[in-house]
Amino acid sequence: MRALVYHGPQQVSVEEVPDATIERPTDALVKISATNICGSDLHMYEGRTSVEEGKILGHENMGQVVEVGSAVDKVKVGDWVVLPFNIGCGFCKNCEHGYTGFCLTANPGNAGAAYGYADMGPYSGGQAELLRVPWADWNALVLPEDAQEKQNDYVMLSDILPTGWHGTELAGVGAGDSVVIYGAGPVGLMAAMSAQVKGADQVFVVDHQPDRLALAAKLGATPVDDSSGDAVDQVLEATGGQGADKGVEAVGFQAHDHQGQEAPGITINSLVAAVRPTGRIGVVGVFVPEDPHATDSLAQKGRFAFDFGTFFFKGQAMGTGQANVKEYNRALRNLIHAGKINPGQIVSQELSLDDAVEGYKNFDDRLGGWTKVVLHP
Amino acid sequence: MRALVYHGPQQVSVEEVPDATIERPTDALVKISATNICGSDLHMYEGRTSVEEGKILGHENMGQVVEVGSAVDKVKVGDWVVLPFNIGCGFCKNCEHGYTGFCLTANPGNAGAAYGYADMGPYSGGQAELLRVPWADWNALVLPEDAQEKQNDYVMLSDILPTGWHGTELAGVGAGDSVVIYGAGPVGLMAAMSAQVKGADQVFVVDHQPDRLALAAKLGATPVDDSSGDAVDQVLEATGGQGADKGVEAVGFQAHDHQGQEAPGITINSLVAAVRPTGRIGVVGVFVPEDPHATDSLAQKGRFAFDFGTFFFKGQAMGTGQANVKEYNRALRNLIHAGKINPGQIVSQELSLDDAVEGYKNFDDRLGGWTKVVLHP
Amino acid sequence: MRALVYHGPQQVSVEEVPDATIERPTDALVKISATNICGSDLHMYEGRTSVEEGKILGHENMGQVVEVGSAVDKVKVGDWVVLPFNIGCGFCKNCEHGYTGFCLTANPGNAGAAYGYADMGPYSGGQAELLRVPWADWNALVLPEDAQEKQNDYVMLSDILPTGWHGTELAGVGAGDSVVIYGAGPVGLMAAMSAQVKGADQVFVVDHQPDRLALAAKLGATPVDDSSGDAVDQVLEATGGQGADKGVEAVGFQAHDHQGQEAPGITINSLVAAVRPTGRIGVVGVFVPEDPHATDSLAQKGRFAFDFGTFFFKGQAMGTGQANVKEYNRALRNLIHAGKINPGQIVSQELSLDDAVEGYKNFDDRLGGWTKVVLHP
Amino acid sequence: MRALVYHGPQQVSVEEVPDATIERPTDALVKISATNICGSDLHMYEGRTSVEEGKILGHENMGQVVEVGSAVDKVKVGDWVVLPFNIGCGFCKNCEHGYTGFCLTANPGNAGAAYGYADMGPYSGGQAELLRVPWADWNALVLPEDAQEKQNDYVMLSDILPTGWHGTELAGVGAGDSVVIYGAGPVGLMAAMSAQVKGADQVFVVDHQPDRLALAAKLGATPVDDSSGDAVDQVLEATGGQGADKGVEAVGFQAHDHQGQEAPGITINSLVAAVRPTGRIGVVGVFVPEDPHATDSLAQKGRFAFDFGTFFFKGQAMGTGQANVKEYNRALRNLIHAGKINPGQIVSQELSLDDAVEGYKNFDDRLGGWTKVVLHP
Repeated sequence: MRALVYHGPQQVSVEEVPDATIERPTDALVKISATNICGSDLHMYEGRTSVEEGKILGHENMGQVVEVGSAVDKVKVGDWVVLPFNIGCGFCKNCEHGYTGFCLTANPGNAGAAYGYADMGPYSGGQAELLRVPWADWNALVLPEDAQEKQNDYVMLSDILPTGWHGTELAGVGAGDSVVIYGAGPVGLMAAMSAQVKGADQVFVVDHQPDRLALAAKLGATPVDDSSGDAVDQVLEATGGQGADKGVEAVGFQAHDHQGQEAPGITINSLVAAVRPTGRIGVVGVFVPEDPHATDSLAQKGRFAFDFGTFFFKGQAMGTGQANVKEYNRALRNLIHAGKINPGQIVSQELSLDDAVEGYKNFDDRLGGWTKVVLHP
Repeated sequence: MRALVYHGPQQVSVEEVPDATIERPTDALVKISATNICGSDLHMYEGRTSVEEGKILGHENMGQVVEVGSAVDKVKVGDWVVLPFNIGCGFCKNCEHGYTGFCLTANPGNAGAAYGYADMGPYSGGQAELLRVPWADWNALVLPEDAQEKQNDYVMLSDILPTGWHGTELAGVGAGDSVVIYGAGPVGLMAAMSAQVKGADQVFVVDHQPDRLALAAKLGATPVDDSSGDAVDQVLEATGGQGADKGVEAVGFQAHDHQGQEAPGITINSLVAAVRPTGRIGVVGVFVPEDPHATDSLAQKGRFAFDFGTFFFKGQAMGTGQANVKEYNRALRNLIHAGKINPGQIVSQELSLDDAVEGYKNFDDRLGGWTKVVLHP
Repeated sequence: MRALVYHGPQQVSVEEVPDATIERPTDALVKISATNICGSDLHMYEGRTSVEEGKILGHENMGQVVEVGSAVDKVKVGDWVVLPFNIGCGFCKNCEHGYTGFCLTANPGNAGAAYGYADMGPYSGGQAELLRVPWADWNALVLPEDAQEKQNDYVMLSDILPTGWHGTELAGVGAGDSVVIYGAGPVGLMAAMSAQVKGADQVFVVDHQPDRLALAAKLGATPVDDSSGDAVDQVLEATGGQGADKGVEAVGFQAHDHQGQEAPGITINSLVAAVRPTGRIGVVGVFVPEDPHATDSLAQKGRFAFDFGTFFFKGQAMGTGQANVKEYNRALRNLIHAGKINPGQIVSQELSLDDAVEGYKNFDDRLGGWTKVVLHP
Repeated sequence: MRALVYHGPQQVSVEEVPDATIERPTDALVKISATNICGSDLHMYEGRTSVEEGKILGHENMGQVVEVGSAVDKVKVGDWVVLPFNIGCGFCKNCEHGYTGFCLTANPGNAGAAYGYADMGPYSGGQAELLRVPWADWNALVLPEDAQEKQNDYVMLSDILPTGWHGTELAGVGAGDSVVIYGAGPVGLMAAMSAQVKGADQVFVVDHQPDRLALAAKLGATPVDDSSGDAVDQVLEATGGQGADKGVEAVGFQAHDHQGQEAPGITINSLVAAVRPTGRIGVVGVFVPEDPHATDSLAQKGRFAFDFGTFFFKGQAMGTGQANVKEYNRALRNLIHAGKINPGQIVSQELSLDDAVEGYKNFDDRLGGWTKVVLHP
C-alpha cells in the first residue's frame, strides 16, 4: 500500500510499504477515505520530537472496514468508522474511568497511545491506504448512513473537534458563560464552536493571523487581534474589567509573542490574567516534558515561569491533557448527523495522498489560507 | 477592649483599643472565646505582606453573640457561633455560586475579604475580646449545645479544617483513592483527616519535622520523611510506580528544600511528579502574586519554573485558592458534633490573649511541639 | 394601589388595596411593569387549592425599584429587577445549597415561599402596582440597560424560563441528547428552548393542541401530536426503538388523557415508557399532596398508580420540584441580553391590569391562541 | 461438573452437568471458589419469575482463572478474580458511559445481562465448579495477593457491596449527611457500611428482625425497629422533625407491612415521608415490571399507589436500578485490601456446594441467623 513516511526533519515521502493487516483477533482493518494533517504532526515534521524514521504518520483517520478479527463483535465489514487518535484497550483503570487518552495497556510503561505519533507506541498512522485498528470494538465509532457525504465533518471526530470540546470541558464551560480561547487554529476554532453549542454567552478568540480571526468571526465568535493591542486588556475591557468566566489554551509549547519570538508559557500566563477569579482554564494545546531544540533553557526542560501567585490568588483551576476522544465522539457524531454542527467548514484543502508531501510543506510554512488539510488516499 | 495589634515585622502587642460595635443593621457582635494563630498570620508577622500597622489580627474565630443589628434574622444573642475566616455578602455572583472566599462586595475592587488580614479589606481580626461580624446571617454558623465543651474542635471550622477539606475537594479525593499531601502543618493534617473521612485508601503526608510526621501517623496517615530520601520516590514506590491518585499542597510559597533553603514551587513540581497521570492536585498552601522580600527574582514576581510539560503530558488538573469555608462548615460541624472527627486534637498550646505576643514568637520560631496555638481572650 | 384579588373559585377582581410598603430593613419596593398570569395561577382560580380569599395573586414579576430598606446593599432605587417567584432568605441550609425554592425561613414550618400563592407564605403577589420584595439583595436580579426594551423576555426569568430550564437540569440534558417533553404549554416550550441551548440533538414535544404544537415546531422542536396516535410509540419509532435519552414533564396533576378525562400520572407513566433505560426524567409540572376535588380516590390523596417496576427495571432516575430560580437566572439573563434566547416570543396577549379579570377567564378557558398573558400595571 | 440447577418453584438440585468451556476468544474460564446465595435468587426459587427450568443459578461469584480465550489480554491463568453479577460487552453506549448493568449487547433486545438469572440472557450461573466469563478483560476484576485469605470479603464485590454502595450513590450520600436505609438484609447492611465510608453523620437502618437490627448496630448504624412504632416518626424525631438528608431502599417489591402482609410500595412511600425536602432516594431493592403471582391487582402490573404529590412538593429526586458493579468494584477492592472495610463479617453460613439445596431452603424460610450464605464448590 502507499503511505506517508517520516524520514527526518522536513523529510517525508509517499511510498510503497507492506500492507497493514489484522494481527490480533480484536483488530479491524480500515480502508482510509480521509486523514488529516494535524498541527501536532508539524511538531514531528519540524524535528521537535523523538519520532523514529520510517514511521507512517497520521492520527486523524476515518474510512471503511474491510476486515475484522475473530473476536470483533460490534464492527462489521462495510461499516464506515472514524477512529479516535488515541488508542485504548478499554479495560485498564484509565480506560474504564473514561481517560482513554491515558490507556495503560496499549503503550506499556506509558499512559496513552496513538496512531503514527512520537512516543505513543508502535502503531502506524493512517496517512496511508490501510490502517490496522487495535481493540476495534472499543476504538472504532460507527457512522450513520451519511458518512461519506459528510466526510469532512465526521473525520474531525478523530481529533480536533473532541479536542476543542475537551478544552471547554476542562474549563467547565456552561450556558451563559463568557470564554476566552487562545489560538484560532483548527483546535481553537473547534473550541469556539463547542462553547457555542454549550450555550456560552460571549466567546473571544485570540490570534494575530487575519484569515484565522476571520474564520473565528464567521463561526460566531468575537475575534481578538493581539497584534493590535494587548489581548488581555481587550478581554478585560469587554467583560467589565472582570475577565472571562472560562479560558481555553489551544496553542501549545510553540507559542510566539507579538514579535514572532517563541515564548513558551505566554498563552498560559495571559489566560491567568484574562480569566476572572474562580475561573477555570482548559489546556489542550500540546506541551512537552522536554524540548531539547528550544532556545530557552527552562523550555528545554519543559518548564516556564508560571504566574502561580496570581493563579492561586484568583482561586483558578486548570485542567490539561490530550482529549479522551471516546468520551465525546458519540454525542458529537449525533450533532453532526442532525446538522447542528459542521466542523468540516474549516477545511481549506483536500489533497490526494500523493500530494501529502507538498501539503506538509505548505501547512508547515503557515501559508495563507492553509487552515486544515484533508488527504483522501 | 484588649486586642492583639500589628506594629511592624516581628512587632505585635496586646493593648487596649476601642470596642468593636454594631456598625450596620446586618452586623452581629461576638464575644470571642477562642481564636487561633494561623500559619498565614506568620506571613504578616514576618513582614512578608503589605498589612498596615495598627491592624488587629486574627481570622480563626468563635464565640458568643452579644448583640445583633436590626436586620439580623437567624443569629440570636446568646448563640455560640464560629466565623469563616472569609467574609462574604451572600448575594454577589461569587457568593451565590459558593465561592464565598471570593466575595465581590466585601472588599471592593478585589475578590475576597477576611478578618484581620493583609489586602483583605478593612476588617479587624478576632484576636481580641470582641469582633464585629458583617452580614451575620450569612457569615455566622450557629453551633449546637456542645459548643463550649468542644471549643477546640469547633474553632477549627473557621479555617484549617475547611481549608484541609478544600484541598481534598479541589483534588477530587474519593473513596478508594490514594492521596499524597505535602506539608504536615495544621492544614496538611486537616487534609489527611479529611481524606480519611472521604474513604481514601492510602494517605501519604510528606514533611521533614519529626513531631509533625508523628502527628500524621497518629491520625492514621503514612508519614513520608523527605529528609530521609526523595519523597517522590517513596510515594512512587508505595504505589507500584504509578504515583498517588490525588495530591494536596499544604505548604505554600515559603516552601523550603532539604537544605532549608526557600524554594518556591518545589512542592508543586514534586506533586506533579508524585501524582499519577490523570490525577488531580488541590493547592491550599498560600501563594502570593508578589513577594518583594524573596531572594529569587522569579519569586519576587510570584512566579516559579513550573514543570508544565510534564503536568500536561500526564493530563493532570489543578485547583487552587483559599477555601470557601461556608461550602463545608455545616457538614463538618455535624461530623464534629457526632464525634466522627475531632480536629482539636492537634492543638498544642492554649494561651490567654495576654500571652499572644509570646505565642507569635514561639510559633514563628517553629519551636518544637508548637503545632497549633489557641488563644482564649 | 390597584391589584388583582382572589375571592373564590372563578372569582377575581381588580380593586383598590393598601399600598405595599417597606416592612423590614432588608425589603425593597418594586413598581411592577410586567407580571404574567401563570398556568399554576389557574389551579387557584379554579378552586383546586386552599388559597385564602383576599390574596393578591401574581408570582411572575418584574419592575423598577422605588424604595429600599436600610439594610439593602446591592439593589438601588431606579434599578430594573426581575423577581424569582420563590422567596428565599439566603442563609438557611436549603438556600445556601442552592435550593432557594425550599427556603426554611420565609414560610416557617414549610420548605418554600412565593408571592401570591397558596400555602407559600403570607406574601402578596405582583399583579398589582407595587410589590414588597423581602431580602431584596438575595431575591432581586438586577437587569441590564435593555431591561425595558426586552421586558417580555426578561419577565420570563421570574418563573417559566428557569422552570423549563430546571426540567432539563433535573433530567441531566446535555449535548447530543435526545429529549422528550410532555406538554407544549409555556413551561414545556421553555424546556424545549432550554434543551436546544444545551446542545440537545432531537427535542420532541408532546401535546394535542395544534397551536401549541405549531409553536414548538417554530422553536425548532419536533412536535408529537398524541391525539393522532400514541406519543410513546411515535417517540420510540423516532429513536430506533430505544426511547429518548431524557424526559421532561411539564403538565402536572391536571393531565388529561386523549378523551379529555383528567388522568393524573398519565404523563409520568408515559415518560417512563418513552425514555430509554438509564435515562433521567425531570418533573416540573405541578403535583400536589392532596386534591380533594379530584374524582379519582387515589388522586384525592395526591397519589397515582405508578409503573414503578418498569421505572426500576430500566434503571431510570427522576428529579422533581419547583425550580430554584436563582440557580439559573443570572446565566439566562446573560443569554437574553446577548440575544441568544428570546423567550418573550411566546407571549400571545399583553393586557393592562384592569383587563386581568378577562385575561384569567380566557386563559382558563384555554381559548385558542391564549398561550401566555402578560399584564402591564 | 457439579452445579445447582433450578427445576421449578422450591425445586433445586445439585447435579452433574456438562463442563463450562471457553466458547469465544474473549472468554475466560473460572474455577469457582466462593459463590453466594442472594436474596434475589429467592425470587426465582419461590417461582416469582419466569426463569427457565434447567438454569444453573448463581450470580455472586469469585474464583481462579483456569483458561483464557485467544483474545484475552489482561486476565491470566492463575489470577484470582471476582465477577460482577452483571455481564457487559464494554463497547456499547451504556457500557461506555458506565451503565454496565444495562449492556445493550450481551442480552440482545434488552438492557442488561447477568449470570444465572431470569430474563438476563443465556448465561449459566456460578453455583457450580466452573463458570464461563464472557468478555473477560472487561468483566473480571483481578484480586491482590490476599484474595484467598479474604475470600468472604472479596466475594461481596460481585453484588451486594457495590449494590449497597450504588444505593448511596443514587441517593447522593456525602460527608455530614444523615441517611435512612429501609431494609437490614445484606444489601441494606452494605449500604449502611457504604454510607459510613463516605462520612455520613447519622445512618438509620429500618427493619423489624431483631438479629438484622443487631447487625446494623454492630456496623455502627442506628437501628430503627418498625415493629415497635412507626419508623417514619422515629426518623423524623431523630432529625429534629426535618427528615433524613438521604434515603436508600434495600427491600424491593416483596416488602411487607407490620402485619406481615405483602405491601409493595410501602418502603418507597415511607422513604418519601422520612426524607427531607430536597432529599434524594436511591432504590436498589428489586422491583419488577410484572408480578403475576401478586395478590394486589396493581402489583400484578408492577405498579403501586405512589405518593407522587408529596414527592414533588418536597422536591425530592430518586435514582433506581441494579448496580453498575464495575463503576465501584476497583475502589471497593482497594478498601478491602487496605482493611478499611470488611463486608465478609455479615456471612452467617459457609456451605459446600452439595449443601446448597438445604441452604436455599433455610435462607428462604428466613431461618433466624441466616443472613448471608456462601457456597464453596
